[in-house]
Amino acid sequence: MFEAAELGHTIDKGQYDQELPGLREALLDAQFDLASAQRPFPVIIIIAGMDGAGKSATVNTLNEWMDPRHIETHGLTEPSEEEQERPHMWRFWRQLPPAGKMGIFDSCWYNWPIMERAAGRIKGARMDQSLERVARFEKMLIDEGALILKFWLHLSKANQKKRLKKLESDPLTRWRVSPQDWKHYAKYEHYRDAAQRALANTSTGEAPWTVVEATDSRYVRLTVGTVLLERLRNRLDQPAPPAPPAPVPYTASVDGRTLLGALDLSQRLAKPDYERELGQLQGRLNQLTRTKAFQKHNVVLVFEGVDAAGKGGGIRRITQAIDARTYNIFPTAAPTEEERSQPYLWRFWRNLPRQGRMAIFDRSWYGRVLVERVEGFCAEADWRRAYGEINDFEEQMARSGTLVVKFWLAISREEQLRRFEERQNTRFKRFKITPEDWRNRDKWDLYEAAIGEMLERTSTATAPWTLVPSEDKHSGRIRILQTLCQRLEAL
Amino acid sequence: MFEAAELGHTIDKGQYDQELPGLREALLDAQFDLASAQRPFPVIIIIAGMDGAGKSATVNTLNEWMDPRHIETHGLTEPSEEEQERPHMWRFWRQLPPAGKMGIFDSCWYNWPIMERAAGRIKGARMDQSLERVARFEKMLIDEGALILKFWLHLSKANQKKRLKKLESDPLTRWRVSPQDWKHYAKYEHYRDAAQRALANTSTGEAPWTVVEATDSRYVRLTVGTVLLERLRNRLDQPAPPAPPAPVPYTASVDGRTLLGALDLSQRLAKPDYERELGQLQGRLNQLTRTKAFQKHNVVLVFEGVDAAGKGGGIRRITQAIDARTYNIFPTAAPTEEERSQPYLWRFWRNLPRQGRMAIFDRSWYGRVLVERVEGFCAEADWRRAYGEINDFEEQMARSGTLVVKFWLAISREEQLRRFEERQNTRFKRFKITPEDWRNRDKWDLYEAAIGEMLERTSTATAPWTLVPSEDKHSGRIRILQTLCQRLEAL
Repeated sequence: MFEAAELGHTIDKGQYDQELPGLREALLDAQFDLASAQRPFPVIIIIAGMDGAGKSATVNTLNEWMDPRHIETHGLTEPSEEEQERPHMWRFWRQLPPAGKMGIFDSCWYNWPIMERAAGRIKGARMDQSLERVARFEKMLIDEGALILKFWLHLSKANQKKRLKKLESDPLTRWRVSPQDWKHYAKYEHYRDAAQRALANTSTGEAPWTVVEATDSRYVRLTVGTVLLERLRNRLDQPAPPAPPAPVPYTASVDGRTLLGALDLSQRLAKPDYERELGQLQGRLNQLTRTKAFQKHNVVLVFEGVDAAGKGGGIRRITQAIDARTYNIFPTAAPTEEERSQPYLWRFWRNLPRQGRMAIFDRSWYGRVLVERVEGFCAEADWRRAYGEINDFEEQMARSGTLVVKFWLAISREEQLRRFEERQNTRFKRFKITPEDWRNRDKWDLYEAAIGEMLERTSTATAPWTLVPSEDKHSGRIRILQTLCQRLEAL
Repeated sequence: MFEAAELGHTIDKGQYDQELPGLREALLDAQFDLASAQRPFPVIIIIAGMDGAGKSATVNTLNEWMDPRHIETHGLTEPSEEEQERPHMWRFWRQLPPAGKMGIFDSCWYNWPIMERAAGRIKGARMDQSLERVARFEKMLIDEGALILKFWLHLSKANQKKRLKKLESDPLTRWRVSPQDWKHYAKYEHYRDAAQRALANTSTGEAPWTVVEATDSRYVRLTVGTVLLERLRNRLDQPAPPAPPAPVPYTASVDGRTLLGALDLSQRLAKPDYERELGQLQGRLNQLTRTKAFQKHNVVLVFEGVDAAGKGGGIRRITQAIDARTYNIFPTAAPTEEERSQPYLWRFWRNLPRQGRMAIFDRSWYGRVLVERVEGFCAEADWRRAYGEINDFEEQMARSGTLVVKFWLAISREEQLRRFEERQNTRFKRFKITPEDWRNRDKWDLYEAAIGEMLERTSTATAPWTLVPSEDKHSGRIRILQTLCQRLEAL
């Protein structure tokens, strides 16, 4: 894989000076076309490679050649305390460029698997697992429209030594060489093998790696610039994205029995019993948010349900019981312009809580497979792939110690009608009912099919759904509090 | 994931008897349409699930309902000695149905990861790695045109116990329950969790899992039949496969330096030296094929090179030295009809050697990214994805203990002309030169670009390319024998 990058590639100064002006102009044109495109897309450029290969110099060059107002650059830094408390990929989600812009990353999500493997801290299987997650992540970005370019700046062992010595000998560049670099050099073969494995596992048809010999900086710059220009132009000049293949049909149960249909909605809880239990549960919940275990975990609550199912009331019974500094509520409405220029899950990633905090989502990422599916706000291929993406998302949360509790609040069609009418007839509740609610109600059957498929495909061992019969508000709220207390106790 | 399959799904006899005739007729129609389709495709049906869930009964039902002449059924058996000596997936490649036919598999490639994980013999990372390989394999099959259906027959713990007891109580079915089954039952939760992980990791948009509650056999049969019919019809009735997205452009080096171009073709070896070295190396090679290490490994040699580069001569210098029972030579010509009805790599998988044997491929799977690419015998998307598929293929070989040695025999354009003319002017060599050779020669530059990309993308740590300067036949042959001896010595 690296043989062609040990040939001694060079570009002499004459050729470089001759080609550079045209290349820079073409890159600026492409950058402008990207920003003003009818369907703009984000461009993610990853510069990875051997120590001393000139990664940051390359990043600087790209900034110098193009308009830096449309470029976001992200060096390789240690994760902050904030970042360490969240899932591994959270820091990269924060850094994703919006559509129309470029993000240039030093190593980013490739740093961890390659470094850990080269240092022998993880085994091959663990590395492959990590790379597989990276590949899924990039696949999602590509499905969401991103253009991804990946460059590996390669040095042979002899050339790495030469480069490090040269940097050390110059007082102006001495700071670039750390004892760490020489330690890595001593284990050169481990780094090379780990890099080779990473590149082989993640070089896909849509996001292949470009391996660049890094001994001659003119060669590096011209290669990176040329490849970037080609890929940009290729994408910009494509007429329209080709139609995705027809999705696979989904068969609900042949006997018509569904999880929702099987739910017993007849439970009732009398007011005095409700008030007694509510008080006890809220006290228990309050205690549970003051434990050491709670401080070490992040908690994510998801409330989903048809209109008027009682999501707000359920959430209030929780927040009444706990310190206001402990939680945030995120109502999920139509995405903002900023959110629309990012991958679908971006607006939920940004709101993931720190340790010892609880994020409560009043509606959530499940909108993709519910309202967006039923109303046709996204293509069928988009909501079909969302099941897998959501499972990956929740699995990443769970793996990093986040407790994910998902509630589906279920009411009957008749009860919904009763509540709608009550809202319409009660002055202070009237703001809660809109013509849209009535329109959604007309699509009850379509929603029911979508809900069924959602519950089946996204109830996982790490993040199961809790179905809450909410025909009776009292018993529904008690069920929610009980479930939350049990899950917190199990931390 | 399994909640919806614990609802007590049933179909009563009346409904079943009413729906069955129509379903069977429609399935037979679809099967006939598949066999006579203009673009036939293979159908792969995987029936997996809990012990006692009725997997084999379901397989039998499908055979009963449809025309068994177009169905191949593969039960779950221990791998044979032949199979154990080859890469893990070899046995499944053998069993793949050709285009126009159906293959029904009991658990197949899902059995190993689920069983090993449930029994605690492998860790989660190892399981994910294995499932990732399965997902890549299925992706390749789908890219090659296959339709894949995956059914998981689920039983709750209580129902599994009931089912096993019932089978035991009947003398006619008692044989179906083994002590093994009860052992698995005792670890029910482990099996369920492992299955859940397997399903979540491999439920893709193109090949999703269908989870079927397996307590009522009528429900199982009707579900499997209905889903199969829907998926078959959906695929058969699609007009034409949608165009794949435009492939990513590839940039060769910006300084025009290439691996091939950098090769020193000026080496010469005088005849007396050649003959002395040849004798020594052939003796050494012969010894190396008689070692214990050789008996425990499979050896695969790949010879590639432009026309008249000396592949045949190189191969003969090897086979002269070793026992004829040790090797097979596979010249790679146009695929047979049987081979064309299978995925591209099938014809190479079938010829993988047993332990202690050597398979010599005179041209190989690299035809996909050489002649097929240059001559336009396949779509660009097909040869683009082939790099990754080939790397997976060779990695699987290496992992199972196969030594893969790949030679690229390089000659200059002028030397090729000299050899062509010699062939034309020598009576006994004239059969070796055809008008096609001359045509290929006209496309030298296109081939050179394809060779360059191939060498870069498929030279991996486990299966590196050896570039053999063959301008001088003597030194080329010596280089081949030296390389082979060194690789065998390192076993």
